[in-house]
Amino acid sequence: MRKIEHLGIAVKDLEAATQTYKALLGKSAYQTERVESEGVETVFFKTGESKIELLGATREDSPIAKYIKKRGEGIHHIAFDVEDIDAEIKRLKGEGFRLISDEPKLGADNKRIAFLHPKSSHGVLVELCQEAS
Amino acid sequence: MRKIEHLGIAVKDLEAATQTYKALLGKSAYQTERVESEGVETVFFKTGESKIELLGATREDSPIAKYIKKRGEGIHHIAFDVEDIDAEIKRLKGEGFRLISDEPKLGADNKRIAFLHPKSSHGVLVELCQEAS
Repeated sequence: MRKIEHLGIAVKDLEAATQTYKALLGKSAYQTERVESEGVETVFFKTGESKIELLGATREDSPIAKYIKKRGEGIHHIAFDVEDIDAEIKRLKGEGFRLISDEPKLGADNKRIAFLHPKSSHGVLVELCQEAS
Repeated sequence: MRKIEHLGIAVKDLEAATQTYKALLGKSAYQTERVESEGVETVFFKTGESKIELLGATREDSPIAKYIKKRGEGIHHIAFDVEDIDAEIKRLKGEGFRLISDEPKLGADNKRIAFLHPKSSHGVLVELCQEAS
């Protein structure tokens, strides 16, 4: 865990939220990306060495739509930058953490990613991410 | 908004959570602090240029106890480091953001702090903080 890579925020209206976070952070988003497999569209802002990732659902059965229905808008997950995701998964399993899936997959922003189960980390959905080479 | 100063996580059992985040981050907490006025005890970890702040309630009527009762454990707020909190409050009010209180107060970790209302920022409780001189 080298740093906070990004913070994911689930929003209902991605366009409105993009304007809000532009005003909040005092700068424009630098990237948008659609991840069809996850039913999500993402908008990224830089802040220091980290990013803010706005997450909007692209269909009703996407995990983000389900999350908002259950919990409302808000902070969805925190992602940590790791040097070697396979080694981190092994280390965290050894520490007793539960992974949502055992193998890293390819996520937005050219990252290999894996999620820890929120029950392992006091209600926080933790993502590990490593720059894909 | 210069960087993510810290991420606040509301937890039921501060001692257990401190062990969990020590295992997760692979390092020990570097500071604990009780803020009696807020009914909260805090434990800080460093990660990159940011911090993780675990928040445990010290009494039943503390905002953290109420939050957990309503929403469960999890990410409670995101704090951004600002150079001049008075100027940022003025700027954000001009952008239409609602502040929870108009004047900054003294928080944990020797900071002057102010909170934006989560309704202003898509369900996210945003804290501004400036190092108190």
